[in-house]
Parts: sequence; structure tokens; C-alpha cells
Amino acid sequence: MNPMSYDVIVIGAGPVGENVADRVVRGGLTAAIVERELVGGECSYWACMPTKALLRSAAALRAVRNLPGASQAVTGDLDPAAVLRRRDDFASHWKDDGQAAWLASAGITLHRGHGRITADRVVEVTGADETVTTLTARHAVVVATGTAALLPDLPGLREAAPWTSREAAAAATVPARLAIIGGGVVAGEMATAFSGLGSAVTVLARDGILPAAEPFAGERVTAALREAGVSVRLGAEVTAVRRDGGAVRLTLTDGEVVEADEVLVAIGRVPNTADLGLETVGRTPGDWLEVDETLRVRGVDWLYAAGDVNRRVLLTHQGKYQARAVGDVIVARAGGAEVEDGPWGKHAATADERAVPQVVFTEPEVASVGLTAAAAERAGLTVRVVDYDLGAVAGAKLHADGYQGHARMVVDEQRRVIVGVTFVGPDVAELLHAATVAIVGEVPIDRLWHAVPAYPTVSEVWLRLLEAYGRP
Amino acid sequence: MNPMSYDVIVIGAGPVGENVADRVVRGGLTAAIVERELVGGECSYWACMPTKALLRSAAALRAVRNLPGASQAVTGDLDPAAVLRRRDDFASHWKDDGQAAWLASAGITLHRGHGRITADRVVEVTGADETVTTLTARHAVVVATGTAALLPDLPGLREAAPWTSREAAAAATVPARLAIIGGGVVAGEMATAFSGLGSAVTVLARDGILPAAEPFAGERVTAALREAGVSVRLGAEVTAVRRDGGAVRLTLTDGEVVEADEVLVAIGRVPNTADLGLETVGRTPGDWLEVDETLRVRGVDWLYAAGDVNRRVLLTHQGKYQARAVGDVIVARAGGAEVEDGPWGKHAATADERAVPQVVFTEPEVASVGLTAAAAERAGLTVRVVDYDLGAVAGAKLHADGYQGHARMVVDEQRRVIVGVTFVGPDVAELLHAATVAIVGEVPIDRLWHAVPAYPTVSEVWLRLLEAYGRP
Repeated sequence: MNPMSYDVIVIGAGPVGENVADRVVRGGLTAAIVERELVGGECSYWACMPTKALLRSAAALRAVRNLPGASQAVTGDLDPAAVLRRRDDFASHWKDDGQAAWLASAGITLHRGHGRITADRVVEVTGADETVTTLTARHAVVVATGTAALLPDLPGLREAAPWTSREAAAAATVPARLAIIGGGVVAGEMATAFSGLGSAVTVLARDGILPAAEPFAGERVTAALREAGVSVRLGAEVTAVRRDGGAVRLTLTDGEVVEADEVLVAIGRVPNTADLGLETVGRTPGDWLEVDETLRVRGVDWLYAAGDVNRRVLLTHQGKYQARAVGDVIVARAGGAEVEDGPWGKHAATADERAVPQVVFTEPEVASVGLTAAAAERAGLTVRVVDYDLGAVAGAKLHADGYQGHARMVVDEQRRVIVGVTFVGPDVAELLHAATVAIVGEVPIDRLWHAVPAYPTVSEVWLRLLEAYGRP
Repeated sequence: MNPMSYDVIVIGAGPVGENVADRVVRGGLTAAIVERELVGGECSYWACMPTKALLRSAAALRAVRNLPGASQAVTGDLDPAAVLRRRDDFASHWKDDGQAAWLASAGITLHRGHGRITADRVVEVTGADETVTTLTARHAVVVATGTAALLPDLPGLREAAPWTSREAAAAATVPARLAIIGGGVVAGEMATAFSGLGSAVTVLARDGILPAAEPFAGERVTAALREAGVSVRLGAEVTAVRRDGGAVRLTLTDGEVVEADEVLVAIGRVPNTADLGLETVGRTPGDWLEVDETLRVRGVDWLYAAGDVNRRVLLTHQGKYQARAVGDVIVARAGGAEVEDGPWGKHAATADERAVPQVVFTEPEVASVGLTAAAAERAGLTVRVVDYDLGAVAGAKLHADGYQGHARMVVDEQRRVIVGVTFVGPDVAELLHAATVAIVGEVPIDRLWHAVPAYPTVSEVWLRLLEAYGRP
């Protein structure tokens, strides 16, 4: 049989791959998508959706406990079993029928199996039954295979059956004791989630909590985790792991031993590129795929990489943003149309460098976009850093008694535009998009004075930040 | 004694007057402020703060009830007495010591009493003990006296001791039965609040619920009120009121009688200008004060009107926005500096016409900014209206089971910028500022594609709205 031919072949049917395929089909091309696991990807089954479901009920209950009048109605505790069941629903019970049906409805052909590039524009798909299907792409192949958890070479770790983000997100029961190696987003969120669900949690954070964020973010999350009973060990490094019967024992550099029932490893990610046939395009299997502004792999004009796998930004929403650019630029190039790859052009992922929004659903939440003060200075910008006590805003006081939070705005003084914003506090997630629009829109500070926040919302912090900056 | 002389005299020490005085003092001028009631004004004691305190605890409890895992912890009901006590705190127990102290710290001189303009730049203040103090203004007098509830000439109404927004916001007890005449923001919020606190509420809304908002907003709030047990009578008009002993009886046009323990009248506002000496400047006492773009009363070069009293926008935050422009333009004119009164200039209240944000704290909340679809069409714009089901957004589903909401974006197709946005749904208040920044910043739709909402937040609706609009 002749190989099956499509305009575009996408390897990986997570949100990023799905969006690439959707854009090219909308642009009039044909697309096949290759998936070896579940259509919908990491985000749908083992990350964003299930983890937020694990966190949301506890967060809502915490909000009520700090509200006189409402707190009196709360006499019981969080029901972990009910939370896990709700999580199961949000993970679609790890079945992808709905997503596969969506692919079909969008006109995208699904090939289940492991995809490997075997030659220029050729992808071989090995199915579960070892049958091999050969696909050829007229215009482009897009790698959207994402990342997996990085497991360090720690003696005894693999034998101890550690959790990664996947096992944590999909946990069927709540361990009595959970040790977490790492201090980033996954570590912070899962410490919050499992502590709320009743685990005794120990976080071994060699590099601190949320080290990439503004320093006050990590400090506040650390303090809140400790207040919730989590043991946060800053600077702690694990040298060996051993599972004895049921318990896992982690030995630290100072010889101390931390005991737990499960250990979650959340120290970083590796690209899913080990068995993709990258050697056929002169790349090293297992490497990240370096791309240009249109997400095309440098030096291979028919190969693109979108999402985590290109290492630009490891966030679902930003991968989908890249997916739109990739899908559209493939269509443009296929049709000989103009490529708009200048800053903020339709085919450029400019926001990857200037305005990546992220919400960490810890308690307090951390919502940030753009540059931290330190990053702005490293970038050589002349910045002014404006801080404000979020708890002093009327809307925050109304939101909950004893509301504590902090807001920071980083202003590029030369252009007089905002280049970074961070909010830390309960329920700050939805404050973020205003900052993203201001940064992406390059709205001058003088104009922002006309953007009045409604009173009394928490968003009034925007007025307070401007007042702290000063009205010329 | 010689009259006391200041650069600027502000009549009315609500948030608007306070901000005017603060801006002129920061600009190097002297300022006196005249207040006949409490420093801090309507918003602090009888509007924004206490009403939101009445609403917040019930809203937080409602959120938990729709969250499996958390709902099991809630066995009791809202405690109305505790809510009223929290409200008392947010109304500072109707004492203005804190605000008066702030005035002093800001270098603003407070004159307690009733202020009247008696001649050019002259204000007489009549104190509680009838002593009269004469103040003269070197540069400007600013009227910031706000509005009061409009009481219609209904037979028997005044004798029935009706509530206005003030009595509702400051209620010491929860009436068993509350009738509300009106269907606007005050009516909607107080129906939500008192229904939540246990009153049997009847709303007599001659012109519908939230008639100024997008039609779906009023429809959804009406449905939710009814679901909560509120009797919403659309089109109902009251012809007579009578209080017999404890009960109030309202007769409707069709002869039906509605009985309640209290009746709240919320049909509109009248400016507090009846006894201000407006006749000395050729104006009719009791009229609204018409102003130019710098908030100066037309034809009187030393007189300004800021906030509700000029009828531009009856919202605290927008009045404070005007106050900044007024304070700064008075300083500029006093010093012979350039007046920046062009669109979006420092001294122009441009947003009053283009981007007024408002959050109605009903359940669901209604958050809107800019033009409704109907208003945009009336203004002669070529618009495209984009709708999206807010409940279909992943972040909303996570926020609460059964989340229902709606989002609308109105796009000016000629300029390809957003001119209006409305969100309806639980907890949408903080979504609004992103829309305000987009409208005020006149950020083109093409650029907005680069403003990625963080996943999975409710703000993802921004991506869905853009997708519904279409990517070129």
C-alpha cells in the first residue's frame, strides 16, 4: 500500500498538537495527528485539569472559613474522597473518547501509535499491535510531544517507585505521609493539594520555593505551607532513597532521614524526543528542539516544534499560543502568502519572551506575567519597581477577613510601559489578565490612569499601584 | 474676622471630594473641604462598602455549596447577625474619625457644616450650632455633594417610612418581608443580599431588572433571584403605599396588594444641589450640574462639579477618576501650565464616555465596561457582537460545578478594537479590568491574540471570545 499522505503531520495530540492540526485544517490543508497515549495529552489527564480539581474545593472552603457569617455554616472538613471523585471527572476518567471525537469533527485524522521521523517529511507510526503505518507530509511535520518528569540519578530512587507529577495528579488515595523533592510549581501545588487533603507533607526544596518568581512569592507560599503544617526544608538535598516495605526513606546530605509513604519527584522536565527519529534530521535524540520565532526547527525547513518540547515556555496555554502561530505559518508558507514574523506578528510567538502569564494555584496563589524585577534588570532595562500591599485594598478586605497579599509592577522607565506584574494572595488568578493585556498592548502608564478599576473589587490594586508609581 | 481663604474649596467630603482636595494639595495649593455629614461619604457608610459586606459572605458560601468535597463541610446556614456585624465594621460603625484623621494628615482643612455658595468664589459654612463661617477660594470651588435617593410622589409613600439605599445598607435587623420598588443596581443587589439573609423579597421592577445592561444580564439575574425564592414582578408599577401598624401595603396598577414589613425605594437618584446657593451662579437649585470635559461647570470659570452631581457617571470609582482630573486641572490652570484636555489627556475624563466599568454584586455578578451592543449601534458604530458561554470555559467548570455564565464582546469593526464587554456569572468581578485596559488602551484585536490567558482560569474566556470572533 502506498504511504498515506497529508499536508501536515503532527506528532503528539496534546492541546498543542490539537491546536496546530486545527489551525492547518481551518487553513484548508489536510492533517494527521499521531498519539501513542491519550488524545488530550498531559494537561487533560495528568496536569492542569486534575491538579486544579484537587486544589479548588479546599481553596473555596478556606475562603469561607475567613468570612464571618459564612464560617459559622462550616462545621465539617474537606471530604478527600469526594475531591478525588471530582478530579476523576475532570480527568475524563482517563478516557479520550471525547477528545478523539473532537478530532474527527474537526477533520483531523488520528493515527494511534508511536510516531518516528524516518526520512524527510516521513513519519512511521508503530501501533500497539506493532503494525507500522507510513505517513508522508507534503508541507510540514510538527513535533508536539511535550515533556516528561526528570528523574535524577539518585541511588535507590527508581526502585522506590517514586511519584512524578502524573502519579500525584492521578493519585487514587491520599498518602498519610508525602515527601516532595523539588520546590517549583508542581511541588508547591501538590504540597498545597495533599496537605489540604490530609497528608503530612515534607517539601525538600534544594533551590527554594518558586525560585523563578519574585522573591516575595516564594516567601509567602513557604510561610503559608508551614502555617498549614507542611514541613518545608529549604536547601535540603536528597542523596539516597530507599523503600523498605511500605515506607520510603530519603537520606539528606546532612545524614538526616525523612520517612514518607510516597515520594513525589518534581525537579524538572525532559523533552519527549528520545525515540522520535531525530537523528534523521541531524539532531540528537533526547535533546530539546531549538526553534526560530515561527517555531520552525533551525535548519530543517519542513520541521516545526511547538509546546514544551522546544523549551521556550513549559505551559499549556503558551504552547497553544505557539500552536496557532505554527498552524497559521504552515498554511501561509504552503500557499505562498506573506509570513508575518516580526514582533507581535501573526506568525511570531513574541509573547513567549515578553508576556508569559502563569498562575500557581498554591495558597496563596501566585499570578505573574512578564519580567520579574531581577529579570528586567538582567535584560538591561531601566526599571522602576512599584510594590503595594494587596491586603490594604478595600476589595481584598471585603473578600476575606485577614486577607494577606502583595502586588508588584515593574515599569520600563524608558518606554513608560509595564513589563512585569506579580500578584500573590488568595484568589488572585483572575487579576492577571489585565496585566497581560497591558504588557502585550504596550499601553503607556499615562493611558492606564484612564483604566479605572471598579470599586470595591480586588482589581482596585491597579489604582493603588499607579498612585504608588506617582501621577505626573 | 476676615473670611478664611484657601486656594480651593471643595463642598462634600465623600471619596470624590477627598480625592479632589488631595490632588490640589499634592499640587502645592491649599484646600478646605466642607462636610455636613460624615467624612467619607455615601460610599463608605451607606453604599459600596456596607452593601458589599452584606453580600460577600453569602456569595462565598454559595461557591462552596457547588463544590463536591467542600460542600460536605457545610452543614449550617448563613448567620445574619454575624454578617450585619461584619457590615458594621466595614461601615466603620458610622464614625468618621479615621477619615477625618486622613484629611488632616493629607494637609486638607475640614469645615464641618452645610456649605452654600453665596458669591463668586465664596462659600458659607453653617455649622450644627448655626455658626456661619465664610470661606473664600482664590482659584476654584468644587461641588462634590453627590446624590440622594429619588422618592417618587406616590400617595402614602413618605408616611410609610420607606427605606432608601441608606436604610437598606445600614439595616440593623433583617425584615421578614422586604418589598423593593425598582429594578436597577441597588434593587438587584439588595434583593440578593436580603434574600440571602433570610427576607422574603418582592421586587417590583417596572422597567425590568438592570435595564441599562446587556439584556442577558437582567435575564440571568432575574432567573437567579427567582430561583433563590425572590418574587420578581417585571412591569409592576406601584400606585399607592400605606403603612398599617407594622405592615406596609403596596397597591399595584392592577389592584393587587403586596404586603411587606419594609419597603425599599430604589428608582433613581437626585443631585444634592437643592440648598447649595446655585442661584448665585445662575443655576437652578436641585438641578444636575452640567460640565465640560475638564469637569468645569459650563459658563463659570471657577466652579467645578465632580462625581454623581454632574450626572456623567454615578459610580464612586468613576467620581474619583474625575476627581483626579479636576484636582490636577485646577493646579495646572492656577500655575498657568498647559491644560491637557484632549481625548485621554490628563485633565479630561475621557473614560466617562468610553470605558466606565461597573460590577453589580448580584448572584450571578454582572461586570461590564464600555458600550453595550445596543448602545454601540445607537452611537453609529459598525460593530460585531461576539458571545460565548462562560460556563463552557474549563476554568469556570473547575470553579464550581454547574457554573453558568455568559460573556459578550462588542468590537468596533472599523477600528478593530473592543468597545464593550459584559460578563455575567459567579465571581466574574475580577475579570473586568482586563476588558477595561483593552478598551482604554485601544489594543487592536490582532494584538490581543498575543495576550494569552493562563490555563485553567476563567479568564480563558478571552481566548474563546477571540476564537469566536475569528482569527484572520
